[in-house]
Amino acid sequence: MSESPSAVPGTQRPGGRTAKVRRAVLDATQETLAAGGFPALNMDQVAAAAGVGKTTVYRRWGSPVGLVADLLRDMAEQSLPAADTGTLAGDLRANAALVRETLTDPRMGAVFRAVIAAAAFDEECARALGGFYRTRLAEWAVVAERAAARGELPAGTDPLELLRAVSAPLYYRAVVSQEEPTPADAERAAAAALAAARAGAYAP
Amino acid sequence: MSESPSAVPGTQRPGGRTAKVRRAVLDATQETLAAGGFPALNMDQVAAAAGVGKTTVYRRWGSPVGLVADLLRDMAEQSLPAADTGTLAGDLRANAALVRETLTDPRMGAVFRAVIAAAAFDEECARALGGFYRTRLAEWAVVAERAAARGELPAGTDPLELLRAVSAPLYYRAVVSQEEPTPADAERAAAAALAAARAGAYAP
Repeated sequence: MSESPSAVPGTQRPGGRTAKVRRAVLDATQETLAAGGFPALNMDQVAAAAGVGKTTVYRRWGSPVGLVADLLRDMAEQSLPAADTGTLAGDLRANAALVRETLTDPRMGAVFRAVIAAAAFDEECARALGGFYRTRLAEWAVVAERAAARGELPAGTDPLELLRAVSAPLYYRAVVSQEEPTPADAERAAAAALAAARAGAYAP
Repeated sequence: MSESPSAVPGTQRPGGRTAKVRRAVLDATQETLAAGGFPALNMDQVAAAAGVGKTTVYRRWGSPVGLVADLLRDMAEQSLPAADTGTLAGDLRANAALVRETLTDPRMGAVFRAVIAAAAFDEECARALGGFYRTRLAEWAVVAERAAARGELPAGTDPLELLRAVSAPLYYRAVVSQEEPTPADAERAAAAALAAARAGAYAP
Protein backbone atom coordinates (compact mmCIF):
# COMPACT_ATOMS: atom_id res chain seq x y z
CA MET A 1 0.00 0.00 0.00
CA SER A 2 1.48 3.31 -1.06
CA GLU A 3 0.66 6.73 0.37
CA SER A 4 1.16 8.30 -3.04
CA PRO A 5 -2.23 9.76 -4.03
CA SER A 6 -2.06 8.70 -7.67
CA ALA A 7 -0.02 6.77 -10.22
CA VAL A 8 -0.37 9.55 -12.80
CA PRO A 9 3.07 10.94 -13.83
CA GLY A 10 4.04 14.03 -11.87
CA THR A 11 1.05 14.27 -9.54
CA GLN A 12 2.99 13.20 -6.43
CA ARG A 13 4.02 15.90 -3.95
CA PRO A 14 1.73 18.74 -5.13
CA GLY A 15 3.71 21.99 -5.28
CA GLY A 16 6.99 20.06 -5.23
CA ARG A 17 9.55 19.68 -8.00
CA THR A 18 7.66 16.82 -9.66
CA ALA A 19 4.49 18.92 -9.86
CA LYS A 20 6.42 21.93 -11.21
CA VAL A 21 8.03 19.81 -13.93
CA ARG A 22 4.63 18.39 -14.91
CA ARG A 23 3.09 21.89 -15.03
CA ALA A 24 5.91 23.22 -17.25
CA VAL A 25 5.75 20.22 -19.60
CA LEU A 26 1.93 20.29 -19.91
CA ASP A 27 1.93 24.07 -20.49
CA ALA A 28 4.48 23.59 -23.29
CA THR A 29 2.38 20.72 -24.70
CA GLN A 30 -0.74 22.89 -24.73
CA GLU A 31 1.12 25.79 -26.34
CA THR A 32 2.52 23.51 -29.08
CA LEU A 33 -0.89 21.92 -29.78
CA ALA A 34 -2.56 25.35 -29.97
CA ALA A 35 0.09 26.62 -32.41
CA GLY A 36 0.65 23.63 -34.69
CA GLY A 37 -1.70 20.80 -33.77
CA PHE A 38 -0.72 17.23 -32.96
CA PRO A 39 1.67 16.85 -35.95
CA ALA A 40 3.83 19.63 -34.45
CA LEU A 41 4.11 17.91 -31.05
CA ASN A 42 7.80 16.95 -30.71
CA MET A 43 9.24 15.59 -27.44
CA ASP A 44 12.59 17.40 -27.74
CA GLN A 45 10.95 20.75 -28.48
CA VAL A 46 8.48 20.35 -25.60
CA ALA A 47 11.40 19.57 -23.26
CA ALA A 48 13.29 22.67 -24.47
CA ALA A 49 10.22 24.94 -24.21
CA ALA A 50 9.51 23.62 -20.69
CA GLY A 51 13.16 24.00 -19.60
CA VAL A 52 13.19 20.32 -18.58
CA GLY A 53 15.74 17.63 -19.52
CA LYS A 54 14.82 15.49 -22.54
CA THR A 55 15.48 12.28 -20.57
CA THR A 56 12.90 13.30 -17.96
CA VAL A 57 10.28 13.99 -20.64
CA TYR A 58 10.94 10.68 -22.48
CA ARG A 59 11.02 8.70 -19.20
CA ARG A 60 7.78 10.14 -17.74
CA TRP A 61 5.64 10.65 -20.85
CA GLY A 62 7.17 8.26 -23.39
CA SER A 63 5.68 9.77 -26.58
CA PRO A 64 3.64 12.69 -27.95
CA VAL A 65 0.53 10.57 -27.32
CA GLY A 66 1.61 10.20 -23.66
CA LEU A 67 1.81 14.00 -23.43
CA VAL A 68 -1.69 14.42 -24.87
CA ALA A 69 -3.11 11.74 -22.55
CA ASP A 70 -1.61 13.43 -19.47
CA LEU A 71 -2.72 16.89 -20.67
CA LEU A 72 -6.30 15.58 -20.93
CA ARG A 73 -6.07 14.15 -17.38
CA ASP A 74 -4.83 17.52 -16.16
CA MET A 75 -7.60 19.40 -18.02
CA ALA A 76 -10.20 17.07 -16.46
CA GLU A 77 -8.71 17.69 -12.96
CA GLN A 78 -8.70 21.45 -13.53
CA SER A 79 -12.12 21.76 -15.19
CA LEU A 80 -14.46 24.15 -13.43
CA PRO A 81 -16.93 22.67 -10.93
CA ALA A 82 -20.58 22.58 -12.03
CA ALA A 83 -22.65 25.76 -11.68
CA ASP A 84 -25.30 26.00 -8.97
CA THR A 85 -27.59 28.89 -9.94
CA GLY A 86 -30.70 27.50 -8.23
CA THR A 87 -32.54 26.47 -11.40
CA LEU A 88 -31.82 23.80 -14.00
CA ALA A 89 -32.31 26.37 -16.79
CA GLY A 90 -29.66 28.62 -15.21
CA ASP A 91 -27.21 25.76 -14.68
CA LEU A 92 -27.58 24.47 -18.26
CA ARG A 93 -27.15 28.01 -19.63
CA ALA A 94 -23.96 28.37 -17.57
CA ASN A 95 -22.67 25.04 -18.91
CA ALA A 96 -23.46 25.94 -22.53
CA ALA A 97 -21.77 29.34 -22.13
CA LEU A 98 -18.65 27.67 -20.69
CA VAL A 99 -18.48 25.10 -23.52
CA ARG A 100 -18.92 27.84 -26.13
CA GLU A 101 -16.26 30.07 -24.53
CA THR A 102 -13.79 27.17 -24.45
CA LEU A 103 -14.41 26.18 -28.08
CA THR A 104 -14.15 29.75 -29.38
CA ASP A 105 -11.14 30.73 -27.22
CA PRO A 106 -8.18 31.11 -29.62
CA ARG A 107 -5.88 28.94 -27.48
CA MET A 108 -8.24 26.40 -25.87
CA GLY A 109 -10.37 26.02 -29.02
CA ALA A 110 -7.23 25.10 -30.96
CA VAL A 111 -6.16 22.65 -28.22
CA PHE A 112 -9.55 20.89 -28.34
CA ARG A 113 -9.53 20.71 -32.14
CA ALA A 114 -5.99 19.30 -32.00
CA VAL A 115 -6.79 16.54 -29.46
CA ILE A 116 -10.05 15.63 -31.25
CA ALA A 117 -8.04 15.34 -34.48
CA ALA A 118 -5.33 13.27 -32.77
CA ALA A 119 -8.05 10.90 -31.46
CA ALA A 120 -9.00 10.15 -35.08
CA PHE A 121 -5.51 8.71 -35.73
CA ASP A 122 -4.55 7.20 -32.39
CA GLU A 123 -6.34 4.74 -30.09
CA GLU A 124 -4.57 5.95 -26.92
CA CYS A 125 -5.52 9.57 -27.65
CA ALA A 126 -9.10 8.43 -28.29
CA ARG A 127 -9.21 6.63 -24.92
CA ALA A 128 -7.74 9.66 -23.11
CA LEU A 129 -10.26 11.97 -24.80
CA GLY A 130 -13.12 9.64 -23.84
CA GLY A 131 -11.83 9.71 -20.23
CA PHE A 132 -11.80 13.52 -20.25
CA TYR A 133 -15.47 13.69 -21.28
CA ARG A 134 -16.50 10.97 -18.80
CA THR A 135 -14.97 13.07 -16.00
CA ARG A 136 -16.39 16.34 -17.27
CA LEU A 137 -19.92 14.98 -17.88
CA ALA A 138 -19.97 13.28 -14.45
CA GLU A 139 -18.86 16.54 -12.80
CA TRP A 140 -21.81 18.40 -14.36
CA ALA A 141 -24.37 15.58 -14.01
CA VAL A 142 -25.00 16.91 -10.49
CA VAL A 143 -27.01 19.83 -11.94
CA ALA A 144 -29.52 17.33 -13.36
CA GLU A 145 -29.54 15.30 -10.14
CA ARG A 146 -30.30 18.42 -8.07
CA ALA A 147 -33.05 19.41 -10.55
CA ALA A 148 -34.59 15.92 -10.30
CA ALA A 149 -34.58 16.25 -6.49
CA ARG A 150 -36.40 19.63 -6.86
CA GLY A 151 -38.98 17.92 -9.13
CA GLU A 152 -37.90 19.87 -12.22
CA LEU A 153 -37.36 16.78 -14.40
CA PRO A 154 -39.36 13.65 -15.28
CA ALA A 155 -38.47 10.64 -13.09
CA GLY A 156 -35.60 8.57 -14.47
CA THR A 157 -34.08 11.35 -16.61
CA ASP A 158 -30.50 10.35 -17.54
CA PRO A 159 -28.29 13.20 -16.23
CA LEU A 160 -25.37 12.39 -18.55
CA GLU A 161 -27.60 12.31 -21.61
CA LEU A 162 -29.02 15.74 -20.73
CA LEU A 163 -25.52 17.17 -20.33
CA ARG A 164 -24.33 15.60 -23.61
CA ALA A 165 -27.32 17.26 -25.30
CA VAL A 166 -26.22 20.71 -24.10
CA SER A 167 -22.66 20.31 -25.42
CA ALA A 168 -23.38 18.44 -28.66
CA PRO A 169 -24.76 21.26 -30.88
CA LEU A 170 -21.82 23.52 -29.89
CA TYR A 171 -19.20 20.87 -30.68
CA TYR A 172 -21.07 20.01 -33.89
CA ARG A 173 -20.72 23.62 -35.09
CA ALA A 174 -17.15 24.17 -33.88
CA VAL A 175 -15.63 20.85 -34.96
CA VAL A 176 -17.91 19.28 -37.59
CA SER A 177 -19.92 21.80 -39.64
CA GLN A 178 -17.29 24.54 -39.18
CA GLU A 179 -19.69 27.27 -38.04
CA GLU A 180 -18.37 29.29 -35.07
CA PRO A 181 -20.90 28.88 -32.23
CA THR A 182 -22.41 32.21 -31.11
CA PRO A 183 -23.80 33.15 -27.67
CA ALA A 184 -27.30 32.70 -29.20
CA ASP A 185 -26.33 29.15 -30.22
CA ALA A 186 -25.30 28.45 -26.61
CA GLU A 187 -28.64 29.79 -25.29
CA ARG A 188 -30.51 27.68 -27.85
CA ALA A 189 -28.50 24.53 -26.98
CA ALA A 190 -29.41 24.91 -23.29
CA ALA A 191 -33.07 25.71 -24.00
CA ALA A 192 -33.48 22.83 -26.47
CA ALA A 193 -31.90 20.28 -24.12
CA LEU A 194 -34.16 21.48 -21.29
CA ALA A 195 -37.29 21.29 -23.48
CA ALA A 196 -36.36 17.77 -24.64
CA ALA A 197 -35.67 16.68 -21.04
CA ARG A 198 -39.00 18.08 -19.81
CA ALA A 199 -40.76 16.19 -22.63
CA GLY A 200 -39.16 12.99 -21.32
CA ALA A 201 -36.68 12.46 -24.18
CA TYR A 202 -33.89 11.47 -21.74
CA ALA A 203 -36.05 9.27 -19.50
CA PRO A 204 -36.64 5.56 -20.24
CA MET B 1 -20.55 31.60 -71.46
CA SER B 2 -19.55 27.97 -71.33
CA GLU B 3 -21.81 24.96 -71.74
CA SER B 4 -19.76 23.03 -69.20
CA PRO B 5 -22.08 22.32 -66.26
CA SER B 6 -19.52 23.03 -63.56
CA ALA B 7 -16.02 24.28 -62.89
CA VAL B 8 -15.35 21.43 -60.46
CA PRO B 9 -12.42 19.26 -61.62
CA GLY B 10 -13.53 16.19 -63.53
CA THR B 11 -17.28 16.79 -63.55
CA GLN B 12 -17.48 17.66 -67.26
CA ARG B 13 -18.81 15.00 -69.63
CA PRO B 14 -20.50 12.70 -67.08
CA GLY B 15 -19.66 9.09 -67.94
CA GLY B 16 -16.75 10.22 -70.12
CA ARG B 17 -13.03 9.74 -69.50
CA THR B 18 -12.81 12.82 -67.27
CA ALA B 19 -15.57 11.50 -65.02
CA LYS B 20 -13.96 8.01 -64.91
CA VAL B 21 -10.60 9.49 -63.92
CA ARG B 22 -12.26 11.57 -61.18
CA ARG B 23 -14.16 8.51 -59.87
CA ALA B 24 -10.96 6.40 -59.72
CA VAL B 25 -8.97 9.18 -58.00
CA LEU B 26 -11.70 9.95 -55.45
CA ASP B 27 -12.20 6.23 -54.69
CA ALA B 28 -8.45 5.90 -54.07
CA THR B 29 -8.53 9.05 -51.91
CA GLN B 30 -11.37 7.65 -49.81
CA GLU B 31 -9.62 4.27 -49.45
CA THR B 32 -6.40 5.96 -48.31
CA LEU B 33 -8.18 8.21 -45.80
CA ALA B 34 -10.11 5.25 -44.37
CA ALA B 35 -6.90 3.22 -43.97
CA GLY B 36 -4.42 5.82 -42.72
CA GLY B 37 -6.12 9.18 -42.25
CA PHE B 38 -5.07 12.49 -43.78
CA PRO B 39 -1.35 12.10 -42.90
CA ALA B 40 -1.25 9.01 -45.18
CA LEU B 41 -2.71 10.88 -48.18
CA ASN B 42 0.10 11.00 -50.75
CA MET B 43 -0.49 12.26 -54.32
CA ASP B 44 1.83 9.72 -55.98
CA GLN B 45 0.27 6.78 -54.13
CA VAL B 46 -3.27 7.96 -54.93
CA ALA B 47 -2.28 8.24 -58.62
CA ALA B 48 -0.82 4.72 -58.57
CA ALA B 49 -3.84 3.23 -56.74
CA ALA B 50 -6.23 4.95 -59.17
CA GLY B 51 -4.20 3.83 -62.23
CA VAL B 52 -3.98 7.47 -63.35
CA GLY B 53 -0.84 9.41 -64.36
CA LYS B 54 0.78 11.47 -61.59
CA THR B 55 0.82 14.58 -63.81
CA THR B 56 -2.96 14.40 -64.19
CA VAL B 57 -3.47 14.11 -60.43
CA TYR B 58 -1.12 17.02 -59.65
CA ARG B 59 -2.58 19.17 -62.44
CA ARG B 60 -6.26 18.63 -61.51
CA TRP B 61 -6.11 18.36 -57.71
CA GLY B 62 -2.87 20.15 -56.81
CA SER B 63 -2.40 18.79 -53.28
CA PRO B 64 -3.79 16.30 -50.72
CA VAL B 65 -6.05 19.10 -49.48
CA GLY B 66 -7.36 19.51 -53.05
CA LEU B 67 -8.22 15.79 -53.08
CA VAL B 68 -10.09 16.06 -49.77
CA ALA B 69 -11.98 19.17 -50.93
CA ASP B 70 -13.10 17.43 -54.15
CA LEU B 71 -14.00 14.23 -52.26
CA LEU B 72 -16.27 16.29 -49.98
CA ARG B 73 -17.92 17.91 -53.03
CA ASP B 74 -18.48 14.45 -54.48
CA MET B 75 -19.89 13.11 -51.19
CA ALA B 76 -22.27 16.09 -51.02
CA GLU B 77 -23.42 15.43 -54.63
CA GLN B 78 -23.92 11.73 -53.91
CA SER B 79 -25.56 12.05 -50.48
CA LEU B 80 -28.97 10.39 -50.26
CA PRO B 81 -32.03 12.58 -50.84
CA ALA B 82 -34.11 13.41 -47.76
CA ALA B 83 -36.60 10.80 -46.55
CA ASP B 84 -40.34 11.37 -47.08
CA THR B 85 -42.13 9.01 -44.68
CA GLY B 86 -45.22 11.20 -44.25
CA THR B 87 -44.46 12.36 -40.70
CA LEU B 88 -41.73 14.58 -39.30
CA ALA B 89 -40.99 11.99 -36.60
CA GLY B 90 -40.43 9.32 -39.27
CA ASP B 91 -38.25 11.60 -41.42
CA LEU B 92 -36.06 12.64 -38.45
CA ARG B 93 -35.70 9.00 -37.36
CA ALA B 94 -34.60 8.10 -40.91
CA ASN B 95 -32.07 10.94 -40.88
CA ALA B 96 -30.67 9.96 -37.48
CA ALA B 97 -30.39 6.30 -38.55
CA LEU B 98 -28.51 7.33 -41.73
CA VAL B 99 -26.09 9.57 -39.79
CA ARG B 100 -25.45 6.80 -37.25
CA GLU B 101 -24.91 4.17 -39.96
CA THR B 102 -22.42 6.43 -41.75
CA LEU B 103 -20.46 7.25 -38.58
CA THR B 104 -20.27 3.62 -37.43
CA ASP B 105 -19.52 2.17 -40.90
CA PRO B 106 -15.89 0.95 -40.77
CA ARG B 107 -14.96 2.68 -44.03
CA MET B 108 -17.17 5.79 -44.05
CA GLY B 109 -16.77 6.42 -40.31
CA ALA B 110 -13.00 6.46 -40.76
CA VAL B 111 -13.30 8.80 -43.77
CA PHE B 112 -15.42 11.27 -41.76
CA ARG B 113 -13.05 11.15 -38.78
CA ALA B 114 -10.13 11.74 -41.16
CA VAL B 115 -11.65 14.78 -42.88
CA ILE B 116 -12.84 16.26 -39.57
CA ALA B 117 -9.28 15.84 -38.24
CA ALA B 118 -7.80 17.38 -41.41
CA ALA B 119 -10.11 20.40 -40.98
CA ALA B 120 -8.47 21.05 -37.59
CA PHE B 121 -5.10 21.59 -39.30
CA ASP B 122 -6.06 23.11 -42.64
CA GLU B 123 -8.26 26.10 -43.55
CA GLU B 124 -9.10 24.78 -47.04
CA CYS B 125 -10.21 21.40 -45.61
CA ALA B 126 -12.29 23.28 -43.01
CA ARG B 127 -14.01 25.31 -45.76
CA ALA B 128 -14.68 22.18 -47.84
CA LEU B 129 -16.10 20.37 -44.79
CA GLY B 130 -18.33 23.37 -44.00
CA GLY B 131 -19.56 23.28 -47.62
CA PHE B 132 -20.39 19.57 -47.33
CA TYR B 133 -22.59 20.16 -44.27
CA ARG B 134 -24.27 23.24 -45.82
CA THR B 135 -25.28 21.06 -48.78
CA ARG B 136 -26.35 18.11 -46.67
CA LEU B 137 -28.34 20.17 -44.15
CA ALA B 138 -30.08 22.11 -46.94
CA GLU B 139 -30.98 18.82 -48.67
CA TRP B 140 -32.69 17.55 -45.51
CA ALA B 141 -34.22 20.89 -44.45
CA VAL B 142 -37.13 20.02 -46.75
CA VAL B 143 -38.44 17.52 -44.15
CA ALA B 144 -38.92 20.41 -41.69
CA GLU B 145 -40.44 22.63 -44.38
CA ARG B 146 -42.98 19.94 -45.33
CA ALA B 147 -43.78 19.40 -41.61
CA ALA B 148 -44.32 23.15 -41.14
CA ALA B 149 -46.71 23.13 -44.12
CA ARG B 150 -48.62 20.23 -42.46
CA GLY B 151 -48.84 22.28 -39.24
CA GLU B 152 -46.56 19.89 -37.30
CA LEU B 153 -44.13 22.63 -36.14
CA PRO B 154 -44.39 26.05 -34.47
CA ALA B 155 -44.38 28.95 -36.98
CA GLY B 156 -40.90 30.20 -37.79
CA THR B 157 -39.06 26.97 -36.81
CA ASP B 158 -35.56 27.08 -38.34
CA PRO B 159 -35.31 23.92 -40.50
CA LEU B 160 -31.49 23.87 -40.50
CA GLU B 161 -31.33 24.19 -36.72
CA LEU B 162 -33.70 21.25 -36.30
CA LEU B 163 -31.59 19.11 -38.64
CA ARG B 164 -28.34 20.11 -36.90
CA ALA B 165 -29.96 19.03 -33.60
CA VAL B 166 -30.64 15.53 -34.97
CA SER B 167 -27.03 15.00 -36.12
CA ALA B 168 -25.19 16.75 -33.27
CA PRO B 169 -25.51 14.14 -30.46
CA LEU B 170 -24.40 11.36 -32.85
CA TYR B 171 -21.33 13.27 -34.03
CA TYR B 172 -20.60 14.28 -30.43
CA ARG B 173 -20.41 10.62 -29.41
CA ALA B 174 -18.56 9.36 -32.49
CA VAL B 175 -15.99 12.16 -32.83
CA VAL B 176 -15.78 13.99 -29.49
CA SER B 177 -16.63 11.84 -26.44
CA GLN B 178 -15.53 8.62 -28.18
CA GLU B 179 -18.67 6.60 -27.42
CA GLU B 180 -19.93 4.57 -30.40
CA PRO B 181 -23.49 5.77 -31.15
CA THR B 182 -26.06 2.95 -30.86
CA PRO B 183 -29.43 2.62 -32.65
CA ALA B 184 -31.05 3.72 -29.34
CA ASP B 185 -28.89 6.89 -29.40
CA ALA B 186 -30.15 7.61 -32.93
CA GLU B 187 -33.79 7.17 -31.85
CA ARG B 188 -33.20 9.44 -28.85
CA ALA B 189 -31.48 12.11 -31.01
CA ALA B 190 -34.51 12.23 -33.34
CA ALA B 191 -37.05 12.22 -30.47
CA ALA B 192 -35.20 14.92 -28.50
CA ALA B 193 -34.85 17.22 -31.53
CA LEU B 194 -38.56 16.79 -32.30
CA ALA B 195 -39.57 17.52 -28.67
CA ALA B 196 -37.37 20.63 -28.59
CA ALA B 197 -38.78 21.81 -31.95
CA ARG B 198 -42.38 21.30 -30.77
CA ALA B 199 -41.57 23.31 -27.63
CA GLY B 200 -40.43 26.17 -29.88
CA ALA B 201 -36.68 25.90 -29.18
CA TYR B 202 -35.83 26.41 -32.88
CA ALA B 203 -38.34 29.23 -33.51
CA PRO B 204 -37.51 32.91 -32.84
